[in-house]
Amino acid sequence: MSDKIYIFDTTLRDGEQVPGCQLNLEEKLMIARQLDLLGVDIIEAGFPVSSPGDFKSVEGISKVVENATVCGLTRAVKNDIEVAAQALKFARKPRIHTGIGSSDIHIQYKFNSNRDEILQRGVEAVKYAKTFVEDVEFYAEDAGRADLEFLARLTEAVIKAGATVVNLPDTTGYLMPHQMYDRVHYLMNNVPNVDKAILSMHNHNDLGMATANTIAGIRAGARQVEVTINGIGERAGNTSLEEVAMILKVHKDLGLYSDIKTEMLNPLSKLVSQTMRMPVQANKAVVGRNAFAHSSGIHQDGFLKHQENYEIMTPQEVGIDKSDIVLTARSGRHALKHRLEILGFKLDKAKLDEAYHQFLELADSIKEVNDKDLVPLMKQLAEVEA
Amino acid sequence: MSDKIYIFDTTLRDGEQVPGCQLNLEEKLMIARQLDLLGVDIIEAGFPVSSPGDFKSVEGISKVVENATVCGLTRAVKNDIEVAAQALKFARKPRIHTGIGSSDIHIQYKFNSNRDEILQRGVEAVKYAKTFVEDVEFYAEDAGRADLEFLARLTEAVIKAGATVVNLPDTTGYLMPHQMYDRVHYLMNNVPNVDKAILSMHNHNDLGMATANTIAGIRAGARQVEVTINGIGERAGNTSLEEVAMILKVHKDLGLYSDIKTEMLNPLSKLVSQTMRMPVQANKAVVGRNAFAHSSGIHQDGFLKHQENYEIMTPQEVGIDKSDIVLTARSGRHALKHRLEILGFKLDKAKLDEAYHQFLELADSIKEVNDKDLVPLMKQLAEVEA
Repeated sequence: MSDKIYIFDTTLRDGEQVPGCQLNLEEKLMIARQLDLLGVDIIEAGFPVSSPGDFKSVEGISKVVENATVCGLTRAVKNDIEVAAQALKFARKPRIHTGIGSSDIHIQYKFNSNRDEILQRGVEAVKYAKTFVEDVEFYAEDAGRADLEFLARLTEAVIKAGATVVNLPDTTGYLMPHQMYDRVHYLMNNVPNVDKAILSMHNHNDLGMATANTIAGIRAGARQVEVTINGIGERAGNTSLEEVAMILKVHKDLGLYSDIKTEMLNPLSKLVSQTMRMPVQANKAVVGRNAFAHSSGIHQDGFLKHQENYEIMTPQEVGIDKSDIVLTARSGRHALKHRLEILGFKLDKAKLDEAYHQFLELADSIKEVNDKDLVPLMKQLAEVEA
Repeated sequence: MSDKIYIFDTTLRDGEQVPGCQLNLEEKLMIARQLDLLGVDIIEAGFPVSSPGDFKSVEGISKVVENATVCGLTRAVKNDIEVAAQALKFARKPRIHTGIGSSDIHIQYKFNSNRDEILQRGVEAVKYAKTFVEDVEFYAEDAGRADLEFLARLTEAVIKAGATVVNLPDTTGYLMPHQMYDRVHYLMNNVPNVDKAILSMHNHNDLGMATANTIAGIRAGARQVEVTINGIGERAGNTSLEEVAMILKVHKDLGLYSDIKTEMLNPLSKLVSQTMRMPVQANKAVVGRNAFAHSSGIHQDGFLKHQENYEIMTPQEVGIDKSDIVLTARSGRHALKHRLEILGFKLDKAKLDEAYHQFLELADSIKEVNDKDLVPLMKQLAEVEA
């Protein structure tokens, strides 16, 4: 018996709000389609009220995503919710994500309010969102520093109001894993209607523990994780999708699984890094250039003697493929098709012919073609399909 | 009552063995001096038997380091230990770090041996190292996957043989924090002579949890942490020094502290990144370019209302300084002196005159001088002092 962990990707919302990472509509549609193929369960597509561009992105993503739920962020404000509902109207599975600050620091200094008033505003926002969509997620901002008894009361109230998911962000990246475990464990045992909703982890990496905090939360009973490709996001970023996905795969002892197709992780990491202009450091877990490189004499020797000596996962599992760097002008149609399929593009004969023609021109000019070089080609393919 | 955590830096050993990161002797001496000023307790300077260059580095570092213990790595092999002792002979506080594989996977496939024989070899290595130096650390390679009862027996035996520190590496970066806590807790309670030595954490970041595992280990009783600047190292790297140092500072609730001068963290991160040619990603915790950047509308608004809303530590605490980017040809001697002092260089008048002269030439040519641009100047200053 293994429990499913729902993967909520916020690369296009929390990730995209980083300075220098802004994407145009075509780029967003391309990444959304890839995330859908990767197997994420929910795509947070943007914050519709924040700008006309964000509204259009959420609307466009709603149209192209085939499997995942598409989610739009709002504050606990009527107009935000109305605009989000409007942006999501083409989504096959729409979700509104609304919420408000829950720590005393936020309640006092950001909202100049008090706990009871904040709880009331949260409940009203959920109820209003429910008039538009069935699936409403509530975020208790800065839950990591919130009073635990109040957080339990708030969680109970928003579930009663109809929230299907309650998100408990560690907004400042403050907690340690044992603290996260204890807090989620408390909520699982002190919120009477907790079985009527899913608790969600949304952890920031300011102290380098976002991934471990997320794992601690799901060990204690949370069943959704909010993550980004390459861990991008505000400040030190969010929890890395690729790290969580591989932990679930390597640690079968957790009794949990996700639907992520892990062999797409490296190609998608490169696509996001390139499109968002956010280089990934060589020693990044799972997707860094050196993540599977064995260099020291002791390690190489041990590795050659027995692979398992130094490896808990294989490069193949995360989509690192020797063919990654050897596409050349002599590569055939089949090799290009294979690589594009790993990158998530399934092409019929006509499209492949067109893509191959462009590929040959590229290969003639740069000799060795890797995933990064294929990005412009992939963008064109995405536009054709959008 | 707060317990000290000993910071063991292995940037120059585990970090430096990464492809493309190799340093020359002057660069190693410069970084070693900076680590000494940063307040690390132990500097692992290299693996003396591995090459004449590594021998010379350990010897040179032994001469220039004033406060920290200088440590050399060996296998559990007599010649390794003799060579290490020779390389360390000028160190004020020398330590030999010897050890052997402890997991059944390593014992069987790397050493083609058995538990009893491995234990015997470990004990003999410690005893032999003790004939050269008082301070001997033993590493139980792949302790993260070792049989726990055997690991307890091995730990007891090497402490009895004279080991002052027992290092329990999670060599493959496999464990989760709750597992690490349980394992260290077991050793603290099942090794009769555990109070005669210090247990040490040496965690790799393959699944993104090295820092959290290290914190779990010290919560359970370990008192040394093996870390690198920027978390560089084999594959996905080691535990980040800067993350552990800031967790100890932010989480006074742990009742633990280190002697790290945290305001040197950002300058030293840049120096290591530049010298080792290992870029740090923008969303790296503590030292990434965006680690303290607040960009989204919601966050900026909240941040302006009350800094504590979104910040658990200040940029100043980790050495991010506006003056970082504003040294120009109009900056005075005092401004340069101030910046170099933050970077760890204390100059007398004559040396400052010389440095200022060179700085002016640089500033004339590139206009804005930041820490990165000061690296060549710092290298010269280090050579003068070595």
